[in-house]
Amino acid sequence: MTPPILLTPGPLTTSARTRQAMLMDWGSWDDRFNQLTSSVCEQLLAIINGAASHHCVPLQGSGTFAVEAAIGTLVPRNGKVLVLINGAYGKRLAKICAVLGRVFTAFETAEDEPTTAADVDRLLQADPTLTHVALIHCETSTGILNPLAAIARVVKHHGKRLIIDAMSSFGALPIDAREVPFDALIAASGKCLEGVPGMGFVFAQKHALAAAEGNCHSLAMDLFDQHRYMASTGQWRFTPPTHVVAALHEALVQYAEEGGLPARYQRYASNCQALLDGMAGLGLRSFLPAAIQAPIIVTFHAPQDPRYQFKAFYERVKAKGFILYPGKLTQVETFRVGCIGQVDASDMHAAVAAIAEALQSMHINLSSLGSPA
Amino acid sequence: MTPPILLTPGPLTTSARTRQAMLMDWGSWDDRFNQLTSSVCEQLLAIINGAASHHCVPLQGSGTFAVEAAIGTLVPRNGKVLVLINGAYGKRLAKICAVLGRVFTAFETAEDEPTTAADVDRLLQADPTLTHVALIHCETSTGILNPLAAIARVVKHHGKRLIIDAMSSFGALPIDAREVPFDALIAASGKCLEGVPGMGFVFAQKHALAAAEGNCHSLAMDLFDQHRYMASTGQWRFTPPTHVVAALHEALVQYAEEGGLPARYQRYASNCQALLDGMAGLGLRSFLPAAIQAPIIVTFHAPQDPRYQFKAFYERVKAKGFILYPGKLTQVETFRVGCIGQVDASDMHAAVAAIAEALQSMHINLSSLGSPA
Repeated sequence: MTPPILLTPGPLTTSARTRQAMLMDWGSWDDRFNQLTSSVCEQLLAIINGAASHHCVPLQGSGTFAVEAAIGTLVPRNGKVLVLINGAYGKRLAKICAVLGRVFTAFETAEDEPTTAADVDRLLQADPTLTHVALIHCETSTGILNPLAAIARVVKHHGKRLIIDAMSSFGALPIDAREVPFDALIAASGKCLEGVPGMGFVFAQKHALAAAEGNCHSLAMDLFDQHRYMASTGQWRFTPPTHVVAALHEALVQYAEEGGLPARYQRYASNCQALLDGMAGLGLRSFLPAAIQAPIIVTFHAPQDPRYQFKAFYERVKAKGFILYPGKLTQVETFRVGCIGQVDASDMHAAVAAIAEALQSMHINLSSLGSPA
Repeated sequence: MTPPILLTPGPLTTSARTRQAMLMDWGSWDDRFNQLTSSVCEQLLAIINGAASHHCVPLQGSGTFAVEAAIGTLVPRNGKVLVLINGAYGKRLAKICAVLGRVFTAFETAEDEPTTAADVDRLLQADPTLTHVALIHCETSTGILNPLAAIARVVKHHGKRLIIDAMSSFGALPIDAREVPFDALIAASGKCLEGVPGMGFVFAQKHALAAAEGNCHSLAMDLFDQHRYMASTGQWRFTPPTHVVAALHEALVQYAEEGGLPARYQRYASNCQALLDGMAGLGLRSFLPAAIQAPIIVTFHAPQDPRYQFKAFYERVKAKGFILYPGKLTQVETFRVGCIGQVDASDMHAAVAAIAEALQSMHINLSSLGSPA
């Protein structure tokens, strides 16, 4: 049986080459593995043109571990964070601040409403005790894109520090560290780089990291210590996920071969368009307007038919070879389809066809959704 | 080129079957992956006969992440920990307590001296404010085995709670939760179970875990929250290292096929004996007396010859197909050789031969070490 294609925001579908890179065991102390780590960090920094300004600090665990590590390491214990929220991952930023005991103010907009630079300007103006701003670049709970560059300019203008959760955008949407000032940008192996899950990484501004000794609430998550040890020994402080690192290295080689960020963006944008067009043809409406829809993951309104149930729908589409993702909105019934991973527009066409067949087999009245395909 | 055999304490040499289990992508939300996780946890609990008394809580990251999570979750903020130290990993336990702000007392013995139950009895008697005892079962910095069962009895007799770092012993040395009382026992995927590195797990005593809400200093490392979410959804709270979990599942299937713990122990004991005999034949002395040497990793005194340098020795042995491990003692020059992983006594014979050839090629006077092989 062919494994299904994952149309999910990560873990996602990887290439056979990437997975085959895990067929070898590596000594975590060995020079060859240290070279692999160092090459991964160099390639990651190159994606944001960040070699002069930032260190890349890899961290074991999921992306959320790296987000918590960035906040814990880079926000001093007497700092105060403005957390920008328009979805579940923004809420998670606030929760991390709360658990870590970092004082914060949350600013929440609707899930289909990007935070604006004007909002941030006003909020920073109103509270001079704020030291940091934290936001989600592309909020995976809907797929909404927040205007990172404009917000970063405002944060810098106020002399404050920016922490960016770019988990689902990094590698596909352009971010240039020479133009977008930030103290930390966080992403992970198993997203748009198309590696397997198991490690995150933080691009930490060099001076900010150098000043962060003793901030962290955790030994394992202390990015200052993680970086200092790696800089002096070439090794990870604690056992690295060797096979995950090897897979990410191989995924980065393929990323460069494909044409780097512009090519990755183009493929995902084309996936997203094929998906939106196909689903519109079925009469399935996307939740977000096109202007704020990132080509990463799309939220669709569920069919307004009593015969529709997500679980049954999911199983039928899965039987046809595609894994979808549940919705994450509380007010509206939705489901999500990812555009990222080792998939192209033809996979999206096939996925739309599978979705159409699944709905038909459930006797969902497609004509009631709009004009059939 | 054949990849070298890793004679290291983890990451170690895994089987081809285990690595091939990583050739498939898994949806982290999908039922099939949830079943994989649940099966892994069941199999792990069975190894310690712990299903009735303990939960298995898996955690993303390295073993140290799981150790920190266990201390942070299970030691209340007003607890006080007696940390037993005879090596680098015991020191790390103390460092974790310090960073997390848990009050602790360290009791340190020499690196070749196991902590005794009498020591623990005396220390608990002397300080009734102690609430927990934390120790390393097999201290990887030397390979020394601490008398876990006897210490556990004393801790229970005093009505205190025990936290065991069993990173390098779990799966090979017997530990029965019905006889050895503990609040937490911690291990990881990439050690004696012969999985790949990338996740740890904590066996947490059910009542202790149920009482641990709100203790943890971290969101990502909160085992109470991790367990509650998994128990109610079947899913990991944050993105799991899907391929690492799949590899561990496959490694556990092979563990059972081999004959479970008794067979694993027997193979490692036979590896250790072959190594000790072969190295003694070369005149290389092991650091620990046999009575306290666990069959996990062996520390050897470096040759007393000015021509010996670990780095050159390491590279020569590696060129012959074996990766050794540096020593971790501060007072004595040593190197280490692991007995664990998908290797058998014939591999150990070959490793000893490679070591002999490497020393000869470096013109190390083997006869000065004792009687040659």
